[in-house]
Amino acid sequence: MLDEFFSPRSVAVVGVSREEGKVGHYIFDNLLGAGFPGAVYPVNPKAADVHGHVCYPSVADIPDPVDLAIIVVPAGAVSGVIEECGQRGISAVIVISAGFKETGPAGAALEREMLATAAQYGIRILGPNCLGLISTSSSLNASFAPSMPEQGTIAFMSQSGALGTAVLDWAAGEGIGLSRFVSLGNKADVSEVDLVRAWTEDPDTSVVAAYLEAVSDGRAFVEAASALSRTKPIIALKAGGSDAGARAVSSHTGSLAGSEQAYDAAFRKAGVIRARSVLELFDFAVGFARQPLPEGPGLVILTNAGGPAILATDACERSGVGLASLEPETITALREALPAAAALYNPVDVLGDAPPERYEVAGSILAKDPNVRAILVILTPQAMTLAADTARAVVRLSQSSGLPVFASFMGKGAIAEAIPVLRDGLVPQFDFPERAVATLAAMLQHRRQLDAPPTLPPIIEADTQVVREAIDHAQAAGRTFITEQSAARIAAAYGIPVPAGGIAKDLGAARLLAAEVGYPVVLKIASPDILHKSDIGGIRVDIQSEEELDEAYDDIIRSVRARMEDAHIWGVTVQRMLEPGREVIIGVNRDPQFGPLLMFGLGGIYVEVMKDVTFRLCPVTTEEARAMLSEIRGFGLLRGARGQRPADLDAVIDTIVRISALVTDFPEITELDINPLIVADKGAGAVAADIRIGIGG
Amino acid sequence: MLDEFFSPRSVAVVGVSREEGKVGHYIFDNLLGAGFPGAVYPVNPKAADVHGHVCYPSVADIPDPVDLAIIVVPAGAVSGVIEECGQRGISAVIVISAGFKETGPAGAALEREMLATAAQYGIRILGPNCLGLISTSSSLNASFAPSMPEQGTIAFMSQSGALGTAVLDWAAGEGIGLSRFVSLGNKADVSEVDLVRAWTEDPDTSVVAAYLEAVSDGRAFVEAASALSRTKPIIALKAGGSDAGARAVSSHTGSLAGSEQAYDAAFRKAGVIRARSVLELFDFAVGFARQPLPEGPGLVILTNAGGPAILATDACERSGVGLASLEPETITALREALPAAAALYNPVDVLGDAPPERYEVAGSILAKDPNVRAILVILTPQAMTLAADTARAVVRLSQSSGLPVFASFMGKGAIAEAIPVLRDGLVPQFDFPERAVATLAAMLQHRRQLDAPPTLPPIIEADTQVVREAIDHAQAAGRTFITEQSAARIAAAYGIPVPAGGIAKDLGAARLLAAEVGYPVVLKIASPDILHKSDIGGIRVDIQSEEELDEAYDDIIRSVRARMEDAHIWGVTVQRMLEPGREVIIGVNRDPQFGPLLMFGLGGIYVEVMKDVTFRLCPVTTEEARAMLSEIRGFGLLRGARGQRPADLDAVIDTIVRISALVTDFPEITELDINPLIVADKGAGAVAADIRIGIGG
Repeated sequence: MLDEFFSPRSVAVVGVSREEGKVGHYIFDNLLGAGFPGAVYPVNPKAADVHGHVCYPSVADIPDPVDLAIIVVPAGAVSGVIEECGQRGISAVIVISAGFKETGPAGAALEREMLATAAQYGIRILGPNCLGLISTSSSLNASFAPSMPEQGTIAFMSQSGALGTAVLDWAAGEGIGLSRFVSLGNKADVSEVDLVRAWTEDPDTSVVAAYLEAVSDGRAFVEAASALSRTKPIIALKAGGSDAGARAVSSHTGSLAGSEQAYDAAFRKAGVIRARSVLELFDFAVGFARQPLPEGPGLVILTNAGGPAILATDACERSGVGLASLEPETITALREALPAAAALYNPVDVLGDAPPERYEVAGSILAKDPNVRAILVILTPQAMTLAADTARAVVRLSQSSGLPVFASFMGKGAIAEAIPVLRDGLVPQFDFPERAVATLAAMLQHRRQLDAPPTLPPIIEADTQVVREAIDHAQAAGRTFITEQSAARIAAAYGIPVPAGGIAKDLGAARLLAAEVGYPVVLKIASPDILHKSDIGGIRVDIQSEEELDEAYDDIIRSVRARMEDAHIWGVTVQRMLEPGREVIIGVNRDPQFGPLLMFGLGGIYVEVMKDVTFRLCPVTTEEARAMLSEIRGFGLLRGARGQRPADLDAVIDTIVRISALVTDFPEITELDINPLIVADKGAGAVAADIRIGIGG
Repeated sequence: MLDEFFSPRSVAVVGVSREEGKVGHYIFDNLLGAGFPGAVYPVNPKAADVHGHVCYPSVADIPDPVDLAIIVVPAGAVSGVIEECGQRGISAVIVISAGFKETGPAGAALEREMLATAAQYGIRILGPNCLGLISTSSSLNASFAPSMPEQGTIAFMSQSGALGTAVLDWAAGEGIGLSRFVSLGNKADVSEVDLVRAWTEDPDTSVVAAYLEAVSDGRAFVEAASALSRTKPIIALKAGGSDAGARAVSSHTGSLAGSEQAYDAAFRKAGVIRARSVLELFDFAVGFARQPLPEGPGLVILTNAGGPAILATDACERSGVGLASLEPETITALREALPAAAALYNPVDVLGDAPPERYEVAGSILAKDPNVRAILVILTPQAMTLAADTARAVVRLSQSSGLPVFASFMGKGAIAEAIPVLRDGLVPQFDFPERAVATLAAMLQHRRQLDAPPTLPPIIEADTQVVREAIDHAQAAGRTFITEQSAARIAAAYGIPVPAGGIAKDLGAARLLAAEVGYPVVLKIASPDILHKSDIGGIRVDIQSEEELDEAYDDIIRSVRARMEDAHIWGVTVQRMLEPGREVIIGVNRDPQFGPLLMFGLGGIYVEVMKDVTFRLCPVTTEEARAMLSEIRGFGLLRGARGQRPADLDAVIDTIVRISALVTDFPEITELDINPLIVADKGAGAVAADIRIGIGG
């Protein structure tokens, strides 16, 4: 996919310039400088030749077939050039030119015109307002970035061209190779989703790194990234997560940033590993690109100094990277091989005077331990340290062990000769050990994702007709919410338990219903006009007898009438009073980018004050629902803390997946809250005490 | 202080060696290599001269006065050399030699012997088992570290010699200057406390950075660091915070790591800024050393690219660094000075083609805005970017504005020429903007600390005699806890409200007491043998009448007798039943390093499951107590969430400072728990419903 972009046989540059300092000049220079082996055709009606290449007045004048056109003409002229490209049979176009949507309504109109023209001919467009792209395996630099990266297996896309330039320059300095670099620009057509799809099948790419400010089509991104992450790691740095950052995004590209929770849930669902900085993005990418994936947890730290090993151990603790517990045979072998003062337990300290051989022998002993799944070699430059030779030993260890091996050679001048040795030997080197640990944590996350069997949300048998009718009825009545009674019927249709009861039109009916469901009961006003019942005295709980019922019924009607004279009153809902239990909340909000986002948390103050909640994109699988429970800080309260019996976790999980099915089946549901779901002890179920459902067009 | 260590006029090296690869060789080489201007005296009975310097057979043979001796002889010979130093009148000694406490009991005995000898002569010892020290202003390299740092104003101490070496090498490569470097080694005598005190008065040092694994004397450290932080910033990287890390510490230096909470509380009390990595430690130190402290929050971001500015904005949000809101006049001036497409609001984007002049004019407009208190200049290397010239403009901005200015020039090769310009211009440069923001956050923390008026804990009028007697009585009875009745008296003696009531020896007395305090009441078994009363049926609550009292009294006695036949029973405590209120917990534990550590949190499950608590070292000031309240996640519950009335926060604060005074006055109290303190609505006070006090020798 997108092959014409990454492996074209011939390239035209429309708007090439002979004038230094012009983008059209840089682009053509870069194209030639990178040694692109195919044909290149500069296009400029005012020039006869550029750098010895014949210049064509227009695309139409190029005699041979062209796979890819790079357009650098002013925004107003772009549509015309695309028309020519279409007539010439060119199907891939990069629009470098700025002056489109990012400049306001007039530019946005130009962008729409350009897209319409492209659509007529089935042309795919990268950009506009972008830096271009680089494909190292094709020796193609179709960008005005000043540096061409080494060939490698990391594909990197950037929604910020300038950040892309900086990263390319930095990567070149660090010797980090890339397979592809793409500046996304305004994403008028080719988006991150297209790139994720293309790179899933790309044999030159082993890991995908992305700098994103917003995702164009959330659901498509999740689907594409999910497919990619089952074969290759994908790492994303999402900017604009904060409120302040979100403001900066909107003023930057005119696109709206989705909410932080939705992105987090989307990345989680899609198996996207989240980086928190550009440095992390590339640390992770380099780790994936250069080292095998660990089989599982079990890091051993091999060091010539205690202090940095403690820092690494602290970092392991913080990021949940487990240290390997060494086998007794390993300890014995280390004891025989190392000086008496060496520390034999993990971290293994081969002492400050360690020559390369001591690192090597310890490393080979450790690599044989079945509990060791990754090795971090720390070196501090001490008086007798031979950094470069030790680096060679580390490279041999990496090659012979088959394990992921990382280096943290600390210092600068004293370890300078070791750096290229490690780089050429494909051992990731980090100036401080914490970075190595964070990288291993990312690789372990990918390992866990690969190891988890793929699951689908369970199929929920439901009476969808009930829901259809309730929604139609509410819409016909012009309401944006479902009445309490209908909501209870909807829940029941999806197998979610609701309290026994019903609507009573008068006191007599209320008495009958109460006798039927059994005391104690709860009474609530039933009216399509009243959403917040308790605010106007519309709820009475713990009614123990018929006398209390009579009094409560009168009270409610009088109180509601007094405050909302004109409300249409259907009667009073009579419900069996629920046994007290642990209260949780399950809610759904429809995110504009990613669709229904399901929230779970403990009810009441835990949500409102402690904000102890967690999110997943719908549809939610049973495994995801189970994970949600354990993610909240207050999970102990459900599992049974302080001598309480465990709550019915399975009933909560069941309710989550049923709610997820409901909102997935009915996109009209824009929001839904079960607050609270009252959860009884294990085996005794859960009941949705209150359900609110909002609907949209 | 410690002047002989940092500014000696003459230095002897005892155990100097002519053999390459020996520490005694490196040390002497380093001493000469750094150009120490004073006299140097090599000591070695087997050599006539070293590098042209006359070698003396022993310290006694040196003809002139010696300020500082560096000892590199084997551990067993160190004490003898120190004896000679003492007789020679040398008062400062660095013991480089290893083989002491870190090797086990025999080494520990040698260390004690060495200290005893030193004590006879009033000699101060740095080490043993250390790398030595460096004092750049004296051109003194009294270490075997392979590189001498440039002169600067950062004083750095390291509890790990090897980490120290690596950092020195790294700092040299990064051009970071130091005033002092000290490797602490085993800290047999000179400790981090001595260095903190010395550097408080050191005119060559403007900022103190420390890598610590454990603190020797917690209270002294807090006192010394508090004094330092009132004049200079002190930044610490504390390793071994995690459990796993703590294990590594003990096997590393034989010292025990204090608990993470205690260190956090101690650093907070002392105004120590905490770094989370070596890189952060030096980022912060360089920021403090090279730039003025910001007057307050209000960062402006000046950039030539949107993406990195968003990343910086995100980082500001995460670390609580406020962005400046620009004045209308500033916006107007920027609009006049910048191209139409520039972003004029913070972040200010001067666009990808910005020449140095555009940065300069925008920077000088921004520097005049009274809301701008710090400037971060971001540069990405784009086609027309002149990095070095822009760096010169940034340096001029830093010099003319008087504001703290930071740079984040991103990339490598394309910005290489800018790096030395920024370094020479003392503008901290960070490869990615997040590091700049974290540094500014640290500087703002120091600013807030300086701005906060110094406060003392309030003086609490208390009847200490009551406490004295209760403790004496418990100790005489061989108990490790204070009985409930005594605990209530102790609380009352410190002005902490307790429920009305007392002990009744029989039912008749219980009836009288209940009538006196008024129903409803609570009954609890009173026995010196029973700590957990509720476990054996020893508590009955909500007793409404004399009939209920009679029944409850019998119940309790029968229940306790049935389960603890031999318990000595004093009777039953009768207390006025407390009105329900919000429950909080106030607890104290005595940390072995730092003394009493006071915990505050919401009661019950909030402590046990949510772990929503915060800590301070005692004595706690009123301001600290107030801050503790707002630090817990559940603060909203006290302040009045969900329509509740605010709780009596002042009563909680008052109780905290009174508890703090109690445990400070009586070191015998090893632990104390008020659980719960029942807090009524604002103005209505708080009552300690249950108090447990544990005592030690």
